Amino acid sequence: MKKFLNDPENFIEEMLEGLYAAHPEDIMPAGGQLRCLATKHKVPGKVAIATGGGSGHLPLFLGYVGKGMLDGCSVGGVFQSPGSDEMLTVTKEIDNGAGVLYIYGNYNGDIFNFTMAKEEADMDDIRVEQTIAGEDVASGPRVAPGEKNTRRGVAGIFFVYKCAGAAAAEMKTLDEVKAVADKVAGQTATMGVAFTPCTVPRIGHPSFEIGDDEMEIGMGIHGEQGIRRGKLAPADEIVSEMLPPVLDDLALKENDEIAVLINGLGATPLEEQYLVNRKVAQIVNERGLKTYRTYVGEFATSLEMAGLSISVLKLDDEIKHYLDAEADAIMFKQFAK
Amino acid sequence: MKKFLNDPENFIEEMLEGLYAAHPEDIMPAGGQLRCLATKHKVPGKVAIATGGGSGHLPLFLGYVGKGMLDGCSVGGVFQSPGSDEMLTVTKEIDNGAGVLYIYGNYNGDIFNFTMAKEEADMDDIRVEQTIAGEDVASGPRVAPGEKNTRRGVAGIFFVYKCAGAAAAEMKTLDEVKAVADKVAGQTATMGVAFTPCTVPRIGHPSFEIGDDEMEIGMGIHGEQGIRRGKLAPADEIVSEMLPPVLDDLALKENDEIAVLINGLGATPLEEQYLVNRKVAQIVNERGLKTYRTYVGEFATSLEMAGLSISVLKLDDEIKHYLDAEADAIMFKQFAK
Repeated sequence: MKKFLNDPENFIEEMLEGLYAAHPEDIMPAGGQLRCLATKHKVPGKVAIATGGGSGHLPLFLGYVGKGMLDGCSVGGVFQSPGSDEMLTVTKEIDNGAGVLYIYGNYNGDIFNFTMAKEEADMDDIRVEQTIAGEDVASGPRVAPGEKNTRRGVAGIFFVYKCAGAAAAEMKTLDEVKAVADKVAGQTATMGVAFTPCTVPRIGHPSFEIGDDEMEIGMGIHGEQGIRRGKLAPADEIVSEMLPPVLDDLALKENDEIAVLINGLGATPLEEQYLVNRKVAQIVNERGLKTYRTYVGEFATSLEMAGLSISVLKLDDEIKHYLDAEADAIMFKQFAK
Repeated sequence: MKKFLNDPENFIEEMLEGLYAAHPEDIMPAGGQLRCLATKHKVPGKVAIATGGGSGHLPLFLGYVGKGMLDGCSVGGVFQSPGSDEMLTVTKEIDNGAGVLYIYGNYNGDIFNFTMAKEEADMDDIRVEQTIAGEDVASGPRVAPGEKNTRRGVAGIFFVYKCAGAAAAEMKTLDEVKAVADKVAGQTATMGVAFTPCTVPRIGHPSFEIGDDEMEIGMGIHGEQGIRRGKLAPADEIVSEMLPPVLDDLALKENDEIAVLINGLGATPLEEQYLVNRKVAQIVNERGLKTYRTYVGEFATSLEMAGLSISVLKLDDEIKHYLDAEADAIMFKQFAK
């Protein structure tokens, strides 16, 4: 795999140096540590929101820091959890006196490290709450509140960031922002499909093998096993297999409103993502559902993996209000200052 | 190459159906023709701006339609010019009574068809002017105004859209908007590098061959021959070869202000684009140039080609003013309504 790369050992740090160089007005390394990214736009009294996770998923996680979204983010190596020390450094930097909400994906390493950082922050009198997003229907059953959720967190976390970020920007309390995040996380479902693996720079060979005429339905964004590996099928057939379990999971009824997120995993052209959205829109219309907004693009990638995921968020007036709020995360502020 | 595809013959139409389904509030097919995209946000008396070109380059061209940017766009098949009839249909739909500016890349097919559409529009009493963007330093020398420019238009056209779109939004006249577009086009330079080819769906095999350990400096976004094919090099070496000709072309002096655009060609992860920006920023700083803004992401792609381009725009107060203006093109309005 050809990559823009110098020494693979320096991949993360060099990527981060380029990131800070591109967005000097908006972000800074907390405590001078590159892997501890913090907003420069602090708002006294506002609940701060932090995320984090492995590198290799841009614009997830770093790209969602910005006004109306997140306040900080710590990242680890490619597909590796950041350490609790980094998370604590971010937490201290971004706290505005109103507490900090951690929003991150449902992976054991992240849970371990974020929970440790939360305990350390508590000892520093910074109140921290957590929302763990896990919405990949291919990776586990829907569970009742309080039960252990085995679903992996994937692109649907974007909706959680967006709504919680908007609630925090409206100066809601930590409990209120967490309630928004939990609600959105619980009303989101995702299914993915992978066509090709990706290559982690330090490893230098593809993360898994898959035949030239094969795809894997339900594969995770780190190459975790999916539901079914089979022959590559026409796009409409793939969508017809992926989308119904997502809609069924949310128990959607006729006239329910939804938001749809088509997410490219890295190497899938935007043209193909839109072609997929055509069939998604047909199925949604056949079920009598109302699409309030559709997002198409790269929101959570896996380096240069070819494939995509489809996420659906069940809406109500509160969630629509937060989706509509203005936001200005660094990855998406390409036009206006 | 694995693609999300049904019948390759329907690739463009199905992609477009998915695009209209995703953005129903903002765009419509002019005259009911899918390949003739027009904004729904008409502003009486405003100069309208149209673009167009081959498909396969999203977010170029269609994605730049929106408030503060473009009013319409016609597209052809993958890497094929749209016809003059389609351009005329778009022109008639978007004209607000103040004339229409065509902004497009320097390719013979596009020039032929846009010029024919202009002549037909003139007969319908719609005044049309043209700005042809060609800024790839690998494809020809810088020429004086009035001389034939042989440079291909690539990602730098984004800057032309942004500034001309902002000028039109301020209700400048057609001559004034064209002057802005011409000025920005003349102060932009780009160089690209390709690692892999892409596969046009109807053709079904890669557009060219390149060794597993090779790259081509200066290759165009349709696979046009570059300056040099050679062994894959470390990222910093690649940047050190690509960027100086761009900076030299613009005759930049110490303390000049610039905007930088790192553009992924399709399959290159955002992480690698940022890693490239690190070296770009170093070279820019060493030359004593001032970076006013940096854009990193996919602005003009070539389906799933791996590679990227670096564009630089020489700034002055007028151009900075237009870069800062708000805009809301459909590909980038992912957060706020």
